[in-house]
Amino acid sequence: MKRVFVLIANKAVTKPFNLNDLAGSAGRMDIVCRFISQSLFISHGVRKNSEVYVILKGEPDPLKTLKIIGSEVRYLAPDERNIGGMIKKALKEGVDKKWKKVSHGVYISRKGLVELLEELGGNFYYLREDGKDITTVHISDPVFILGDHLGVSEEDERVIMKKAEKISLGKISYQADQCVTILNYILDKRLNNSQREIT
Amino acid sequence: MKRVFVLIANKAVTKPFNLNDLAGSAGRMDIVCRFISQSLFISHGVRKNSEVYVILKGEPDPLKTLKIIGSEVRYLAPDERNIGGMIKKALKEGVDKKWKKVSHGVYISRKGLVELLEELGGNFYYLREDGKDITTVHISDPVFILGDHLGVSEEDERVIMKKAEKISLGKISYQADQCVTILNYILDKRLNNSQREIT
Repeated sequence: MKRVFVLIANKAVTKPFNLNDLAGSAGRMDIVCRFISQSLFISHGVRKNSEVYVILKGEPDPLKTLKIIGSEVRYLAPDERNIGGMIKKALKEGVDKKWKKVSHGVYISRKGLVELLEELGGNFYYLREDGKDITTVHISDPVFILGDHLGVSEEDERVIMKKAEKISLGKISYQADQCVTILNYILDKRLNNSQREIT
Repeated sequence: MKRVFVLIANKAVTKPFNLNDLAGSAGRMDIVCRFISQSLFISHGVRKNSEVYVILKGEPDPLKTLKIIGSEVRYLAPDERNIGGMIKKALKEGVDKKWKKVSHGVYISRKGLVELLEELGGNFYYLREDGKDITTVHISDPVFILGDHLGVSEEDERVIMKKAEKISLGKISYQADQCVTILNYILDKRLNNSQREIT
C-alpha cells in the first residue's frame, strides 16, 4: 500500500539557500529536510512505497512544490544537509505547472495545494490535535497532510477539509517529522510489513 | 516518569569537527544529533522528563560520553546543525571521569558504557530486532539502550545483557532516532501524558 505524505511549509524559501542556515534564512528548511527523511528512510533502506510532497510557501517566488518518490531516489542520505542540497538543486530550476525532473525521484513544479490535492488519488487524512483518534480510524491508500511549526493557514485548511478526515495521534503535539515516523510505525504494525516488503 | 535514552555511537569523533560534514568526517555525528533531537523535542517544547546519554567511540580520543538533561537545557533547537554545535563545544573541553558542565543541561565525561550503566538507575531495555515485542512488555523507569547504524559491538552487548531486557519494535529495522520517537509515542499513549505534563 502506497503512503503519501504532504507538508505545507509556510516559510520555506523558494530560491537556492545557504546550507549552513537551514533553520534560519532558509525559512525552517530543516523541518522540510527532516520530514522528507522520516518519510523515506528506515535503517539501511528507503521505503519504496512512500511518496513525499512539500509545498514551499516562502519568499521570494511562491508557490513551488517538491515531489520525491521513494522507489526512484538514488544517492540520497538521511541527514538534513544532504536532503537540503537536493532541495537547493531543485530550486535552481525554472518551474511551471508540470512536474520537472531534477534528479532520480525528485521533481519540482509550480503547483499549489489545490492543484496538488486534485492530482493525488487516495484517502486524505489531515493531522490535527483535535482530530479523531487514529487508533479508531481505518487507514487505506493514505494521503497524510501536515503543517509545519506554524500549522496550516485558514485558507489552506478550507481546501484540505473539502477532502480530508481530521485525525489525531493523541494529546501531545508532535513535530511534523515525528508524526511521519509515528504514522509509518502504526501502518507497519497494522499491515504487519517486513523490511523486505517495503524497501 | 523519567525516560533515559542511551546511544552507542561507534564512529562519532571525540574531537571538535566540521559542522558542514556531520555525516562524513565527523563519524555519522548526524545520527547522534537526530537521536538527541528526537529524545528531547516535541512541537514547541522540550520534554522535561527526558535524559540522553551518547557514548562517543570514534577517534582520536575515545571514549567520551555526553549527558543532556531535558529539564535543564536552554537555547537548543531541534536541527542537526544546532545540536552539532552544542556537541562540538563540549568536545573542546578537557575531560575526566566526573561530569563536567559545558552549558545549560549539557555535560561531558570520560565515562564508558560500564561506568555509565553503573551510574544510571532504573530498568534497562536493549532495543534489538530479535527482542521481545514491546507491546507485551511492561515499561517502567526506562533506560533504553540503542546502537547506531553499525549496531552494538559484541563486547558492549555483553555489558548490556548483564542488566537489560531485549525488546523490539517489530519486524522493521528503524533508525536509532526513529526508535526514540516511537518509544516516546508508545509511552505517551500508555501513560496518557498531556503536553503540559511533560514540557
